[in-house]
Amino acid sequence: MTINDVVRADAVPETSWIERGGTPTAPGTGRLRPLGLREVILRPGFWQERQQTNQSASLAHIEHWLERAGWLGNFDAAVQDRLPAARRGREFADSEVYKLLEAMAWEYGRTGDERLDARLRAIVARVAAAQEPDGYLNTNFGRPGQQPRYSDLEWGHELYCYGHLIQAGVARARTSGHDELVQVALRAADHICDTFGPDGIASVCGHPEIEPALVEMYRVTGQRRYLDQARLFVERRGRQTLDDIEFGRAYFQDDIPVREAGVLRGHAVRAGYLAAGAVDVAVETGDTELLDALARQWRTTVARRTYLTGGMGSRHQDEAFGEDFSLPADRAYSETCAGIGSVMFSWRLLLAQGDPRYADLIERTLFNVIATSPSDDGTRFFYTNTLHQRVPGIDPPADALVPRAASSLRAPWFAVSCCPTNLARTFAALAAYLATTDDEGIQLHQYAAASLETTLPDGRGIGLEIDTEYPADGHIAIRIVRTPQAPWTLTLRIPHWTTDATIEVDGRLSPVSAGSVQIRRRFTAGEVIVLVLPVRARLTMPDPRIDAIRGCAAVERGPIVFCLESADLPSGVPLDTLSMNAATDLTERDGTVVATFHVKPADGDDWPYGGVVPTEPGASLPVPLLPYHRWARRGPSSMRVWIPVHDG
Amino acid sequence: MTINDVVRADAVPETSWIERGGTPTAPGTGRLRPLGLREVILRPGFWQERQQTNQSASLAHIEHWLERAGWLGNFDAAVQDRLPAARRGREFADSEVYKLLEAMAWEYGRTGDERLDARLRAIVARVAAAQEPDGYLNTNFGRPGQQPRYSDLEWGHELYCYGHLIQAGVARARTSGHDELVQVALRAADHICDTFGPDGIASVCGHPEIEPALVEMYRVTGQRRYLDQARLFVERRGRQTLDDIEFGRAYFQDDIPVREAGVLRGHAVRAGYLAAGAVDVAVETGDTELLDALARQWRTTVARRTYLTGGMGSRHQDEAFGEDFSLPADRAYSETCAGIGSVMFSWRLLLAQGDPRYADLIERTLFNVIATSPSDDGTRFFYTNTLHQRVPGIDPPADALVPRAASSLRAPWFAVSCCPTNLARTFAALAAYLATTDDEGIQLHQYAAASLETTLPDGRGIGLEIDTEYPADGHIAIRIVRTPQAPWTLTLRIPHWTTDATIEVDGRLSPVSAGSVQIRRRFTAGEVIVLVLPVRARLTMPDPRIDAIRGCAAVERGPIVFCLESADLPSGVPLDTLSMNAATDLTERDGTVVATFHVKPADGDDWPYGGVVPTEPGASLPVPLLPYHRWARRGPSSMRVWIPVHDG
Repeated sequence: MTINDVVRADAVPETSWIERGGTPTAPGTGRLRPLGLREVILRPGFWQERQQTNQSASLAHIEHWLERAGWLGNFDAAVQDRLPAARRGREFADSEVYKLLEAMAWEYGRTGDERLDARLRAIVARVAAAQEPDGYLNTNFGRPGQQPRYSDLEWGHELYCYGHLIQAGVARARTSGHDELVQVALRAADHICDTFGPDGIASVCGHPEIEPALVEMYRVTGQRRYLDQARLFVERRGRQTLDDIEFGRAYFQDDIPVREAGVLRGHAVRAGYLAAGAVDVAVETGDTELLDALARQWRTTVARRTYLTGGMGSRHQDEAFGEDFSLPADRAYSETCAGIGSVMFSWRLLLAQGDPRYADLIERTLFNVIATSPSDDGTRFFYTNTLHQRVPGIDPPADALVPRAASSLRAPWFAVSCCPTNLARTFAALAAYLATTDDEGIQLHQYAAASLETTLPDGRGIGLEIDTEYPADGHIAIRIVRTPQAPWTLTLRIPHWTTDATIEVDGRLSPVSAGSVQIRRRFTAGEVIVLVLPVRARLTMPDPRIDAIRGCAAVERGPIVFCLESADLPSGVPLDTLSMNAATDLTERDGTVVATFHVKPADGDDWPYGGVVPTEPGASLPVPLLPYHRWARRGPSSMRVWIPVHDG
Repeated sequence: MTINDVVRADAVPETSWIERGGTPTAPGTGRLRPLGLREVILRPGFWQERQQTNQSASLAHIEHWLERAGWLGNFDAAVQDRLPAARRGREFADSEVYKLLEAMAWEYGRTGDERLDARLRAIVARVAAAQEPDGYLNTNFGRPGQQPRYSDLEWGHELYCYGHLIQAGVARARTSGHDELVQVALRAADHICDTFGPDGIASVCGHPEIEPALVEMYRVTGQRRYLDQARLFVERRGRQTLDDIEFGRAYFQDDIPVREAGVLRGHAVRAGYLAAGAVDVAVETGDTELLDALARQWRTTVARRTYLTGGMGSRHQDEAFGEDFSLPADRAYSETCAGIGSVMFSWRLLLAQGDPRYADLIERTLFNVIATSPSDDGTRFFYTNTLHQRVPGIDPPADALVPRAASSLRAPWFAVSCCPTNLARTFAALAAYLATTDDEGIQLHQYAAASLETTLPDGRGIGLEIDTEYPADGHIAIRIVRTPQAPWTLTLRIPHWTTDATIEVDGRLSPVSAGSVQIRRRFTAGEVIVLVLPVRARLTMPDPRIDAIRGCAAVERGPIVFCLESADLPSGVPLDTLSMNAATDLTERDGTVVATFHVKPADGDDWPYGGVVPTEPGASLPVPLLPYHRWARRGPSSMRVWIPVHDG
């Protein structure tokens, strides 16, 4: 198939999206419909602060490092015939440039910032110049002195890089319309279909990502071949077309066909991206068997392989899920990108099926993984998000790459730097996760100060103002700014951790319980619906099958997981000498949660296995707890989420 | 310095060792003196069985695989100029050949088996042919198309391979005298001194092993330059001459100088070998500061970084020690070779200082790591020795390499196959660990059925017969077969787990407590000393700082750690539904330990973090426990050493 630019420019029909600011995920069918990034505007609060830091600091920080590390320069070197000698970075370095472009595209869609648009165009010009006539684009393969194209599907990441390129093209098409980036992405998509189609290379990429990207490009263009190709990739996966590796084929989910698997496994980011793309394929092809299989995998993964924070992946060695209930707090990997992959998967299932439990997990992951990673100034990041730091780490150098998981403190850039760019595109498009519509009305899934202005599918306009200090406070006021006269339904998610929640409609207070509440009525402009989700500190105990945290409890408050950080301890009191009474009172004062701990002197250096350990409690010590996402912001420290409990 | 074969042949003076069967470690000074492999003969029992299986099956199995995998063929390929194209195996494949040679040499020293000697000579001839005129010998470096010599000290393993070559030469010199293998090893040793001496490459190898090897070759030859070179390597270590790597320089102990470090860290095998070599250097140079530092590191490592089994190294990613008390049972790495490295370290400290705690750890490691690795027929091996197998693994193929740690069952050979050859040399020389002499008499450190026939340094001859079924039974009868008339001292180690031990001398029964007991008297031929170490099953609790096993207990009996294996459970009762009462009675019948467990039905697939977990015990179920070293011998299974306990 030849590329026809004129046809391709016409093949980007969704101009309506551009006015709405674009949305990352736009299924053609399903229980709920997403909103555009200009339909939900974050107002001052927890998430707006992070989105603004991303806009004002992280994007420039990332662009700076992509230049400095030479990963952007790889494209120039390709044009100037200086590869492979001049190439810098890992085999997937191209993808970080594409994720920055995607982040910039959403940010432009949301804000219309023309200077940002110019920066985006400048990068796109350098990328586009490196694309080969047949659509191939990768700075690491195919030139003299490099490995041949597609000669290392296990580790080469070529299709993975295309996936992020196409996602960037999708973001651009939905927020700006057809331009050079869209064109580059379309050429790449066609090249992939030509190369990996039914008569092409009958394999898959060692790192999924091309699957959701191709479906989204199908959604943008209506070009069925992209969907067919994505379906082919999903169907091929799990049939051992990739070589076996030391970690086993489960590492790249090539062990079991997607529709036959029972749980997510292997590399956690790969697993999440693949599952997200498979939902996309299932939705667009009406494949309910596949969709049901994915929903089942989600349930089992959440029940057996997910950290309290929502984090996924417990192993450092292969950045992978462990066995069921193998969820050690100590050295929990919980990669930031795996959290993003989990949100992508849950969001697609939520749109397809509407079950509020998907939004529950998104909330937990946003507040306790996504919010944990970046520094307050948006220029340092956690790659992994452990739940127990035994020994204070070192402060990574501000001017050097660090290995992906070397430190207990946030680092400016990594040799494997997937997380910063992944956060950037997520924060730029964050508002998309707050609300949806269906034929009946509006659904609020995440609570944040925000304005919502949209039209129902039948054309009726609705405007809401959401006023809240959530999650610090559970009082959520939803003011109806604009409403049709006819009745419609406002659906509010009631988080699974909720007790004693109430809703006040038209002056009437009603108790509501976990799940969701639907308010169907003739709303009037100016009226206020008040949802109260009491966010009291509570003790949480683990399933006894999670061996590594037996005998411990965690403190949560609303959706926020708390931790105990050494910075809050008197000097000379090591973290591992503290324990908590199972019936302890958690006191709250000015938003601070304080618990009383018992301190026992540490034992000496003898053989650490012996008879009965004395259990008498030590001296009492009240210590403030810290929201987990706030840890490691005061210098090197030790920290634990799960705290040993004793009786009496 | 040029090589002078005549001088070198004369430089192997210790012919006395040959009659005594050789010994792996022969310090020139220290508190205790080792015995030769023909001075202590194992009799039928726990260890003789394993030593015979090693002799009759493992050595041939290893030789077969070294041929089959092409690692022996690498030496032929070097001679025939077929490298690098024909090279097989990892960068350290040469070392496996050398470890087999060392094993064969000890075995020949012990048994005088001439057919084994011929096999050894045949392999040596192939190795020797590949040595270059200047003494360099490595099939992976230095030829056209290969990396230059010593261009990758971090990962190249060249000095590591030499270390094992020299150890093989030492074994040969001590058991057979000067021959081609000794000559090859001496040439290599000289080449190293020429290349890495004070004016040579000022660095170290990424994998320690050359250090103990050079000291031992000094002990064989009296050539001071070998000791000086070993000391130089020990002193250079920890001064960041190696490049930084993703795991950090602690991985190869190049982070902190040996005499300044407080604890073993990084790659556990590397740490053990380095520590062993550093003790050797300290002993031979009279460096008490260095020796004290190593003893301190040993104590801290044992108190904070050692599994109940004696196993060391908790991390899969870098095969490394974790932080203090980071000792998860689940996915415990506890590499077989790290156990061997720990025994090497402890044995050298025992010889230097005489403290019975070193022998305690050796015993624990022999029974629970070394004995766990090989299959009963000696042809399959554990590379790692986890303390908790959650899911039954798969049976590795009998005809293929497997990755080092992929399975829950023993495998015939590994891509990284250090453990089988390491076990082979250890089993061949095992009797050396049983006893020592000093000016006063004999010390028994490990208890096994054995005959001992030696002379004290002053020339007085002593013969003992040790009759015991230890560790199945704690009754140990020591018959004096030959004794001088003058008094001498018999010192017996009393293991640290002992309670109610007694010793009977001349009809008088005395209680003895953990540590050691010294019996100084005029012994008479025919008299029997009876030591009773009651080996009752007991519950062991962990230090509360070992988070991953909080709320659990283990069962031990004498030096043997027990486990609960799914093969002993009724079908339909998953391992993770069982718990044990903290005050449970352990009943013993015919050597079998049975405990009563409570079985709770597993919970469903909900969010696994919630309110208070109900603690009522479930149905009672008596289940036999299994010595840990016996696990995974009945097919794929799940297993745990640490068992959850509940009160009441």
